[in-house]
Amino acid sequence: MATGHLHRGSLIVPPSRMAEPADSSRKTAITPRREEDFPEWYQQVIRAAELAEPSEVRGCMVIRPWGYGIWENMQRQLDAMFRATGHRNAYFPLLIPLSYFAKEAEHVKGFAKECAVVTHSRLEGDADGKLMPSSALTEPLVIRPTSETIIGASYAKWVQSYRDLPILINQWANVVRWEMRPRLFLRTTEFLWQEGHTVHETEAEARAETRQMLEVYGRFVCDHLAVPVFSGEKSESERFPGAVQTLSIEAMVQDRKAIQAGTSHFLGQNFSRASGIQFQNREGKQEFGWTTSWGMSTRLVGTLVMAHGDDDGLVLPPRIAPTQVVILPITPKEETRGAVLEACDKLAKQLREIRYVDLPIEVEVDRRDVGGGVKNWEWIKKGVPLRVEIGPRDLESARVTVSRRDQSVKMKESMSMQEFVSCAPEVLDSIQRNLFERAKKFRDEYTRVIDSKQEFYDFFTPGDAAKPEIHGGFALAHWDGSREVEEQIKNDLKVTIRVIPLDDSSEPGKCIFTGKPSSRRVIWAKAY
Amino acid sequence: MATGHLHRGSLIVPPSRMAEPADSSRKTAITPRREEDFPEWYQQVIRAAELAEPSEVRGCMVIRPWGYGIWENMQRQLDAMFRATGHRNAYFPLLIPLSYFAKEAEHVKGFAKECAVVTHSRLEGDADGKLMPSSALTEPLVIRPTSETIIGASYAKWVQSYRDLPILINQWANVVRWEMRPRLFLRTTEFLWQEGHTVHETEAEARAETRQMLEVYGRFVCDHLAVPVFSGEKSESERFPGAVQTLSIEAMVQDRKAIQAGTSHFLGQNFSRASGIQFQNREGKQEFGWTTSWGMSTRLVGTLVMAHGDDDGLVLPPRIAPTQVVILPITPKEETRGAVLEACDKLAKQLREIRYVDLPIEVEVDRRDVGGGVKNWEWIKKGVPLRVEIGPRDLESARVTVSRRDQSVKMKESMSMQEFVSCAPEVLDSIQRNLFERAKKFRDEYTRVIDSKQEFYDFFTPGDAAKPEIHGGFALAHWDGSREVEEQIKNDLKVTIRVIPLDDSSEPGKCIFTGKPSSRRVIWAKAY
Repeated sequence: MATGHLHRGSLIVPPSRMAEPADSSRKTAITPRREEDFPEWYQQVIRAAELAEPSEVRGCMVIRPWGYGIWENMQRQLDAMFRATGHRNAYFPLLIPLSYFAKEAEHVKGFAKECAVVTHSRLEGDADGKLMPSSALTEPLVIRPTSETIIGASYAKWVQSYRDLPILINQWANVVRWEMRPRLFLRTTEFLWQEGHTVHETEAEARAETRQMLEVYGRFVCDHLAVPVFSGEKSESERFPGAVQTLSIEAMVQDRKAIQAGTSHFLGQNFSRASGIQFQNREGKQEFGWTTSWGMSTRLVGTLVMAHGDDDGLVLPPRIAPTQVVILPITPKEETRGAVLEACDKLAKQLREIRYVDLPIEVEVDRRDVGGGVKNWEWIKKGVPLRVEIGPRDLESARVTVSRRDQSVKMKESMSMQEFVSCAPEVLDSIQRNLFERAKKFRDEYTRVIDSKQEFYDFFTPGDAAKPEIHGGFALAHWDGSREVEEQIKNDLKVTIRVIPLDDSSEPGKCIFTGKPSSRRVIWAKAY
Repeated sequence: MATGHLHRGSLIVPPSRMAEPADSSRKTAITPRREEDFPEWYQQVIRAAELAEPSEVRGCMVIRPWGYGIWENMQRQLDAMFRATGHRNAYFPLLIPLSYFAKEAEHVKGFAKECAVVTHSRLEGDADGKLMPSSALTEPLVIRPTSETIIGASYAKWVQSYRDLPILINQWANVVRWEMRPRLFLRTTEFLWQEGHTVHETEAEARAETRQMLEVYGRFVCDHLAVPVFSGEKSESERFPGAVQTLSIEAMVQDRKAIQAGTSHFLGQNFSRASGIQFQNREGKQEFGWTTSWGMSTRLVGTLVMAHGDDDGLVLPPRIAPTQVVILPITPKEETRGAVLEACDKLAKQLREIRYVDLPIEVEVDRRDVGGGVKNWEWIKKGVPLRVEIGPRDLESARVTVSRRDQSVKMKESMSMQEFVSCAPEVLDSIQRNLFERAKKFRDEYTRVIDSKQEFYDFFTPGDAAKPEIHGGFALAHWDGSREVEEQIKNDLKVTIRVIPLDDSSEPGKCIFTGKPSSRRVIWAKAY
């Protein structure tokens, strides 16, 4: 069966993607390679794929159409999950009066150092005609770094009785947190995100919501982004400012560091007290609402790059790719050009009539008058899951040449156009699964159960380059629950507790640092 | 045929909706009525429909889920039209350095008085612990009132050669323009919009793009919002700051004022000169790009309210309604409650399997434990196109009672469930068309050809209340093209030129104010 090769067995999955042997004959798209300089490789993939670029506004980025297309897909898919769990979207002001913002003490402490502050409402020329801020505001306004306090002010008005609960609202918005060490997508002064804000009648309901949304996040990242995650609770020192409990999902990327991919916070009654969200309960008494908040951001795009990208550029899971199939006309001669383009358009039309995960397959025919090799490499770098070439020789036999982005760029398969059309959704699905399996295998390989302090320090200390033993990754180790130990480890190794697993597989033991009792292993890693 | 009544002929379309006779027996949802106090009616409809509310941040509004649902539908539908015309979305920074902003002189002059200015990047407690702005920025940042200058900075980097053109990009974003006299949706300090920004090789191409997008806007507002518009060019005094030409579509709402619903600007080379967007043309010479920009905003939601709302509340065109059909279970007795709810769910399921304008019909079953009359009025006020009641007596005969929002609240029709399911898309379509026809009839009735100054002044001067002759609306009158006349009329009557029609039906005549020659009639009106 000619298609077998494309979606079964024969994929070369290197034991470690970082250690993939260099092929000196290959035209490598990205310089440096991952193993040479991972942070620089990351920047270069983003540039080569035209995902985004730094702007001249300090810490802010420009998200280019290809990067924004990925974000739009994330938005659409997450949004459907939010709706399915009963949430609706709304929109609250960008600007927060200082007095609102200051209402929750822990909250303001956590964000005060990174707030953009609006102090004036117009510009005026000075004596030399130079533009200067003018009309000082009586109360400065903070550009939202997150919206608990401004949304709380509305909820306080909307909630009177238990009958008004729950409130289940999400907002898609931009936020600003002043960033001294920006990195595209992962840490930018302005970023795009969604923030869910809910109010509940009881603590149990709010806690259940907090967990439900973590579960939605985990499912989204695994099933749509093809990235496996560990989920659990943050330790106190990593908690959202003002929260009672912060839950998080953590992904491992290819330099074996962790990325916090989404967080869900149980806020108790802290913010409802601060904002005055009170309701008459079933016993007729006034009570403060129980609130939650949860968010995911454009940071996910960076996670995607670091999790799946290879030395040729971006690799996109089909479910999230703005274009799933790119068709590349090969037109060496002017006289066959028209017929080739026609065949390409015909194929595109057929593919668009097929559905992959409930939506028409997204196809682009690249008709640009640019050399075939250049075009091919551009799409490799952009990470499009399937590339299909059609040239003059393919016309008579109605054949196409297909390449999967999750395989070596040299692997190509010739097959009949009809065969390709009929197996396209299956191939896309196979790529999606393969990316997940590959990422999971990698993550599991670098996730270690560690039972001694020495082993722990060795694991997180770069070894001798001549002895490429495994170091770095996720360590599952016992911890006594003290903040002192966390701080010591952070100072010594830049390693932090990523999550305290929530599941019931608790396994009593002893803290590997102090010997004190521990009820469960926690997950440690270096993190972005 | 039992359904005939629902979607044919028998609609009562009053000659003037403003003059609709009061029915004293009717429970009027909105106080005051339109004819009593239109601005206050507008606020009350927005409140009753839970579209939005003022926030305590001066001039900013909170868009509630029902209002945001309308905006999301507008976004999705407009976005598809942008894609179909070759545009892609991207995202540029919220904050603009003062130096960028100041590059285009006319531009900065137009916006300087309404700019929110960020001057500090953190908060710190003063001696008394009071939070104060701290860490002053070396260069203040302006929150984008529009993005020509910040986007231009990127385009200058992206464009090198004519091969890089055209650039066809759109952005969905929030913008801030300090507003002293805010009005929900129509004029708010922060608002949501889309802004298209394109660069072209030739003047002709950029002018064609400017007109194409105006045409897209006109089509969207007519076909999706069911609001007829006049389109044309703005006079110099109403032009976008920095533009060579501003095109606009203008809608008439029920107090006969105009609302500018969308604008498309031909920017010539003004902004490319300011931002340095230069390319090597086909002759190998450096040339400045020809740019356009075009935008539509949440102002459209206000336009919708004012164009279609009635004395019972909001009236939504089906294509833009977040819920197209609401099913109201009538459950007087506990023992039949389960069966009624089941029938409602069954109907909802059947309706969701049907498509209206390519998407499943949006249905909501209102299961809340609230009185039937209260629920019914809530959905009337929210403007849902079709309300369907199912009670215990309907179960055996499998019948439903249907009400159209574009008809009197008293009109109800009983029909079989199957019949309703099969005609639902047709009925929705009929409501969509009826709303448009009604709005067009109204607009045409109050659009007058005027040939003398006296007649013009009379038309725009409120008459004797005892003589309810037509006054106000759109006046088609000759104008000599001078700014002096425009200013005089604006001072005397608060009337401005809305557009200079673009079509070829020029009809030479004489300015009704000065007697000087005029090549065509222009459209005058009071405006929001």
